[in-house]
Amino acid sequence: MKMRLEHDSIGDIEVVDDKYWGAQTQRSLMNFPIGTEKMPKEIINAFLLLKKACAIANMSYGKLDELRGNAITTACNDFLGGDLVEHFPLAVWQTGSGTQSNMNTNEVLANRATEILNGSFRNKAQIIKNRLVHPNDHVNMSQSSNDTFPSALHIMCVLEISSQLLPALAKLQGALERKAAEFKDLIKSGRTHLQDATPITLGQEFSGYASMLEHAKQQIIVATEFCSELAIGGTAVGTGINAPKDFGERVCAELTAMTECTFKSAPNKFHSLTSKDAVVFLSGALKALAANLMKIANDIRWLASGPRCGLGEINLPANEPGSSIMPGKVNPTQCESVTMVAVQVMGNDCTVGFAASQGNFELNVFMPVIAYNITQSIRLLSDSMVSFSTRCVEGITANEKKLQAYMEQSLMLVTALSPLVGYENAAKVAKKAFAEGISLKEAALDLHLCSPEEFEKYVVPANMI
Amino acid sequence: MKMRLEHDSIGDIEVVDDKYWGAQTQRSLMNFPIGTEKMPKEIINAFLLLKKACAIANMSYGKLDELRGNAITTACNDFLGGDLVEHFPLAVWQTGSGTQSNMNTNEVLANRATEILNGSFRNKAQIIKNRLVHPNDHVNMSQSSNDTFPSALHIMCVLEISSQLLPALAKLQGALERKAAEFKDLIKSGRTHLQDATPITLGQEFSGYASMLEHAKQQIIVATEFCSELAIGGTAVGTGINAPKDFGERVCAELTAMTECTFKSAPNKFHSLTSKDAVVFLSGALKALAANLMKIANDIRWLASGPRCGLGEINLPANEPGSSIMPGKVNPTQCESVTMVAVQVMGNDCTVGFAASQGNFELNVFMPVIAYNITQSIRLLSDSMVSFSTRCVEGITANEKKLQAYMEQSLMLVTALSPLVGYENAAKVAKKAFAEGISLKEAALDLHLCSPEEFEKYVVPANMI
Amino acid sequence: MKMRLEHDSIGDIEVVDDKYWGAQTQRSLMNFPIGTEKMPKEIINAFLLLKKACAIANMSYGKLDELRGNAITTACNDFLGGDLVEHFPLAVWQTGSGTQSNMNTNEVLANRATEILNGSFRNKAQIIKNRLVHPNDHVNMSQSSNDTFPSALHIMCVLEISSQLLPALAKLQGALERKAAEFKDLIKSGRTHLQDATPITLGQEFSGYASMLEHAKQQIIVATEFCSELAIGGTAVGTGINAPKDFGERVCAELTAMTECTFKSAPNKFHSLTSKDAVVFLSGALKALAANLMKIANDIRWLASGPRCGLGEINLPANEPGSSIMPGKVNPTQCESVTMVAVQVMGNDCTVGFAASQGNFELNVFMPVIAYNITQSIRLLSDSMVSFSTRCVEGITANEKKLQAYMEQSLMLVTALSPLVGYENAAKVAKKAFAEGISLKEAALDLHLCSPEEFEKYVVPANMI
Amino acid sequence: MKMRLEHDSIGDIEVVDDKYWGAQTQRSLMNFPIGTEKMPKEIINAFLLLKKACAIANMSYGKLDELRGNAITTACNDFLGGDLVEHFPLAVWQTGSGTQSNMNTNEVLANRATEILNGSFRNKAQIIKNRLVHPNDHVNMSQSSNDTFPSALHIMCVLEISSQLLPALAKLQGALERKAAEFKDLIKSGRTHLQDATPITLGQEFSGYASMLEHAKQQIIVATEFCSELAIGGTAVGTGINAPKDFGERVCAELTAMTECTFKSAPNKFHSLTSKDAVVFLSGALKALAANLMKIANDIRWLASGPRCGLGEINLPANEPGSSIMPGKVNPTQCESVTMVAVQVMGNDCTVGFAASQGNFELNVFMPVIAYNITQSIRLLSDSMVSFSTRCVEGITANEKKLQAYMEQSLMLVTALSPLVGYENAAKVAKKAFAEGISLKEAALDLHLCSPEEFEKYVVPANMI
Repeated sequence: MKMRLEHDSIGDIEVVDDKYWGAQTQRSLMNFPIGTEKMPKEIINAFLLLKKACAIANMSYGKLDELRGNAITTACNDFLGGDLVEHFPLAVWQTGSGTQSNMNTNEVLANRATEILNGSFRNKAQIIKNRLVHPNDHVNMSQSSNDTFPSALHIMCVLEISSQLLPALAKLQGALERKAAEFKDLIKSGRTHLQDATPITLGQEFSGYASMLEHAKQQIIVATEFCSELAIGGTAVGTGINAPKDFGERVCAELTAMTECTFKSAPNKFHSLTSKDAVVFLSGALKALAANLMKIANDIRWLASGPRCGLGEINLPANEPGSSIMPGKVNPTQCESVTMVAVQVMGNDCTVGFAASQGNFELNVFMPVIAYNITQSIRLLSDSMVSFSTRCVEGITANEKKLQAYMEQSLMLVTALSPLVGYENAAKVAKKAFAEGISLKEAALDLHLCSPEEFEKYVVPANMI
Repeated sequence: MKMRLEHDSIGDIEVVDDKYWGAQTQRSLMNFPIGTEKMPKEIINAFLLLKKACAIANMSYGKLDELRGNAITTACNDFLGGDLVEHFPLAVWQTGSGTQSNMNTNEVLANRATEILNGSFRNKAQIIKNRLVHPNDHVNMSQSSNDTFPSALHIMCVLEISSQLLPALAKLQGALERKAAEFKDLIKSGRTHLQDATPITLGQEFSGYASMLEHAKQQIIVATEFCSELAIGGTAVGTGINAPKDFGERVCAELTAMTECTFKSAPNKFHSLTSKDAVVFLSGALKALAANLMKIANDIRWLASGPRCGLGEINLPANEPGSSIMPGKVNPTQCESVTMVAVQVMGNDCTVGFAASQGNFELNVFMPVIAYNITQSIRLLSDSMVSFSTRCVEGITANEKKLQAYMEQSLMLVTALSPLVGYENAAKVAKKAFAEGISLKEAALDLHLCSPEEFEKYVVPANMI
Repeated sequence: MKMRLEHDSIGDIEVVDDKYWGAQTQRSLMNFPIGTEKMPKEIINAFLLLKKACAIANMSYGKLDELRGNAITTACNDFLGGDLVEHFPLAVWQTGSGTQSNMNTNEVLANRATEILNGSFRNKAQIIKNRLVHPNDHVNMSQSSNDTFPSALHIMCVLEISSQLLPALAKLQGALERKAAEFKDLIKSGRTHLQDATPITLGQEFSGYASMLEHAKQQIIVATEFCSELAIGGTAVGTGINAPKDFGERVCAELTAMTECTFKSAPNKFHSLTSKDAVVFLSGALKALAANLMKIANDIRWLASGPRCGLGEINLPANEPGSSIMPGKVNPTQCESVTMVAVQVMGNDCTVGFAASQGNFELNVFMPVIAYNITQSIRLLSDSMVSFSTRCVEGITANEKKLQAYMEQSLMLVTALSPLVGYENAAKVAKKAFAEGISLKEAALDLHLCSPEEFEKYVVPANMI
Repeated sequence: MKMRLEHDSIGDIEVVDDKYWGAQTQRSLMNFPIGTEKMPKEIINAFLLLKKACAIANMSYGKLDELRGNAITTACNDFLGGDLVEHFPLAVWQTGSGTQSNMNTNEVLANRATEILNGSFRNKAQIIKNRLVHPNDHVNMSQSSNDTFPSALHIMCVLEISSQLLPALAKLQGALERKAAEFKDLIKSGRTHLQDATPITLGQEFSGYASMLEHAKQQIIVATEFCSELAIGGTAVGTGINAPKDFGERVCAELTAMTECTFKSAPNKFHSLTSKDAVVFLSGALKALAANLMKIANDIRWLASGPRCGLGEINLPANEPGSSIMPGKVNPTQCESVTMVAVQVMGNDCTVGFAASQGNFELNVFMPVIAYNITQSIRLLSDSMVSFSTRCVEGITANEKKLQAYMEQSLMLVTALSPLVGYENAAKVAKKAFAEGISLKEAALDLHLCSPEEFEKYVVPANMI
């Protein structure tokens, strides 16, 4: 491998020549050989958008010359949407401020911008004497890791929620609503405590699932709102040292123009640097969605249990062989991946909350681990809702015979008799029917609690839903 | 102890005569000798409000006669605000639907209402033949545990948040804002990564804390909104069997009139019975507050560390002797109770999320444990914010000499020189000063990086905040 | 209320005269009006044992005179096993070292010992001039809160695990083993992924549950072992200042003699004061038990689901009416209380781990919250295993007809044909039988994959278990 | 891309020709486009060892012919230790039994073994008619995903703990012990509640850290013991259908011979398939270690805080520039990566416990998510302990002047006077010294509580440690 020398305030260091990164990235690579988890590409993407907006803002004050400023924004465009893995190799488990990922971005952009300006970042003499674009002085101008990392984190949340999670949620909600409509006339036995309860339609059950998604959507939208406040402009400790007064406002205006999302400069930067409350709140909303998804996926696999020794009220698409030893077995595998994602999101929420509580003084230095967990939660929920929708929910069919058979024999139809004969007499009817294996009607008549006509009038499943 | 016979659909059972409860409460007491945790009084209180609103609604349809209806509402008034412990003795660890606490309320109100109507609930013959007010048929009319417990849970959240938590939060926020104003001119060394950073004022630090409370307030308010949707009207499985069509709407209107809070009938009752997403979301907002409180309390005790071997930038009120062995020791005990509350709230949030994910079909049967944890979180946060505010924050004084001394010797003042000499040269200045134990100015001049006048012009702490 | 003056190093304070506690307890009561949770009586009990052992050890050196020493041990005996609530009123949410509960114990014992010595703790003049037994100088002799609270916490764990949890676990394990034996010949369809699988006996399923309890027992025993190491002897910061050299060893020997459990002086007291790893590890073992209990209780309620629209393979005892609206409903309420306890224990474990990680320097000041959560976990698991065993497991009966009917129609019996015809051909048989609603034998013969004799020889459920 | 047809019991499917995997792997790839997390290579490695041991065991019964058996073991050797990423591409978020990863292994090995036997897995006609080695019939012989995945999970835990975690822990423990020895004579002020306390040596503090590692090691060893029990031999539901009677024993003997670790056949296979208690228990032990590491890393960065506005008692190695805006800043970055790992491990533990509780009937179908989290915890703890040891702990130096200066002015030296003058008088001395800014000796003499000689005799820091 051909190497080149790079340099930072600590000294020189060798870097593989075909990478754009510089000395601090290289040091981080060597100092943190921990795990396999990389700073998520969604965070890098947010950093690139932010650096571009900052360069434009810096140019607007005349603080950054147009030559360098335009080279930086061009460099940002070169990487945005590209393969970010190659030049952004740092581990999650680095410094807790994410400084090294900020510097990774600064270095890659400075070197690429130098190249755009027909300079070479590979010539060491030229680098030291005459670096056309400096990672700290130019790319990081008016910024600090302490305001850029929290900003990138919030930008990522807003963009991924709006571009990935909400569309995925809408897709699943739509699928559930269509099933609710399709199954609206299929009366079945309800179940509470896993025990037979009064009737309900299969469509009503699915309408409940759709309503869970609707509530989750609303919760996620109001929670994400808090992430639209950005720390940018606070620099090192929140005072905005070395940044123009309204730098935060100008950067947020640029970001709003660049994306289809609204960003605003946080009113109190001390809060923004050291509290991660917006992310904790969002993570809580994601946890509420995860709890709903777990419940829905569990219900669906239980309703589909069998084929011969379970409830068997619905059928799921068979996507693959289910067992390596039992031939012909088909399993609710999409439900299983959803429930595994749900527990992962709950554990991630635990990590996020704990990490957020550990800030000291002017900065929280658990930011990469927070970024990693919230990004994973958003991505897993998004991907699994799409897959669950496409490969499971949309293909669900009802087993009408089974639904009807269960419903007709349910003892809880007696509930409809309660207003006529009172709760305690109705209980006697149900118990007698169960003990003697007879129908509710037989039991009610045997007990002389109502006439056959009254029974027929009161106990009508179609009126109970 | 004098006993009387009580009766339910399973048979007769003895109850201590001076208690209002009936057979099902007694069975629950005997069947669940688990732990010491009782169904929280805040939940019982919400149940009483709900039962009163239901009785009024039932009378409005003519479904419940005025005699019994008024006796029930009077009975509710008798217990509301009273000592709820005596007649509501059930454990949290009961049936997962909370049916037994619903029945406890029904039984106590039925017996008390019977008494109000000059009947006796103690005469067994009379009870069976001629019970004036029946727990199921009258008090629980148009209701099920399955819609009353989720409703009581939401009512509790809305009432306790508005009457306890938000006022406590406002009190602490006010105290922090007053300190922010009081300390606004005290310049000090900022700290990031626990290492010296650029200057900040002590007032700015406190303004960050106040801003955390402001954000927490907003988050809790939007989250609590979701709890204003009530399940009432859904009865057994969400279909509303045995309840009038708009029962939920009428009950919510009554509740809104009774309290200063708005309640509305949930648009999809299947969702309301089986998803606990509103409580998970609220618990997440409380967790975000807890994380903020942990950070604030930690900062405050660190700033007050010493008196001679710590940071010692502020002084806390001395409320009690701190040590059983070290005479004269004073500890940041209010901070400690806040941080212990914070970790409890985080664990509770874990329990709430997990429990909420475990619903099956038409009902979630982890409701008492959810109710217990969210109630504890609300109460602990409320109480501890009041105590922390009164016994700690309000009495904080600044140690101005220490603040100034630290600030003046901080090497990070060099950051202000960076725009003049560049990041790398500024780094050289700081390193030289540290290595040689000299001042930044001496180091900068030795390195010929600026003139004395330039140094004086650029490095002005008061301009850096 | 008659009041008396009490006194500590901060000054005088009024205390209700009929309580034994002194000034510091009173201050804590007033300074921490937070929540309703009191320092658990199990911790107070451990404190009393510890104080008694310390008094005996102090007398053994001649450091504490026999008169005072014996009065203190008598005072300990007076409270041990008595009603601890009255004189130990402090909140969990106090100082994080638990100093106030240590002082509560010291004060109560000092005042009671003074009384035993015919002195009066009510006469202020006498108190100041001539206090016969002083809470710090005599009861707390050779001790600090910093070594007594961690010691009391460990003593509590060891005693409650051995006297409450392990017997409760053994009771449940025994009940499950008896059911495993009772049901050993009942062949049924196994279920994996909730889908029909190869046969198993109901007894084998219960043997799996019993084996879970056996493994939990072993895990809890090895984990509790780590709690037998006590901090006592470390005093203020672990150095043992003001305590005799082998004080820890002598106190542990006394405690071992007093209880049926072994205690040993921790080899490194710095570790003991500031790390809570033994409790975290124990809590993890309790979590593993909780996960097992959740699985067992879930299985049992699913197997008992119905009575007519569920699996209905087993029957549970009917302990109470199940529904306030559906007459005759019986629910698996004991299972529900077990699963609620399980999620509580998981949340508690989260709190314990988080709190344990927050020690600084020579002490962890999250001790009361750790004590509260681990005590609750032990108590809830113990109580619920006893109740679940008595009121549910012991009364389970099998529904043999249902078991057999399901088993006979299960398509997964085809697995036994796999060694003869290969996995893929066996899969064809199962799919054909399912699609055409015919038996496996019919399908196999139709496909000419085996002879009727071969089918009969290979597919024998009784040989598959 | 050149494609080939592969086939399973559901039908034909195209696979990229240069991959060894088959139809089921391909289906899983297409059906689970969820997240970026792959089945950990540590799990694949364990699967390969297991498959090899199974092939040897199957040959030992004559059930598998030597030709195929040897080809399979050779194929295992080909992949063991190699780059596993290329042929094992499946997501964590697949079927909850991990069946697809078991089949991935079966398919890759079957195809590679076919190749070894000079057959071609690329010729479709040949595949169907004459597959030399079949993934289910030969590689998976006597096995099911239901016993192989739990076995691979346990094998992974045992191997990674012994080969990665314990050596890393020993390295860190050694480094801490060496520092304890190096610093054994450096007396300093202890700190409890962040407030000055009685003296301690810096070496004693480090000995406490070393003792935490020692306890963690013991806990992890006893916990890992439970993972040495393997499910293998249980096949589909724990009954061992289609496997020879002592298959589990023979496989475990082979594994024990292959590795340096002991494995044994689980005594109750029903337990092994459906309970994950061993992993929960191990995860709890890892959490206890994480809590200890968090405490140690926090202490170390606090002791090193400054350089001028913090405690500054020790110095850490400067590994990289610390700030993108503040020149010359050095941060405790290794400590930060350790504390981030610690919170991740705590969140993972939450996920593991929750997932383990969700088993139904004969199988737990949350196995991939459990495997993913426990593998991540082991790997992160191992890597970060090595890095923390090498790049931080080993380079720590003491700031002796600061240590001494703090110690000498600490008011808590007064504790040593307590046995002479009593706790309350000693408190008066400390308070007077603090209020008047004078020394303890001056205060004591002013108060006429002791003679100068007595003070000198009692208050000797070197005697207080």
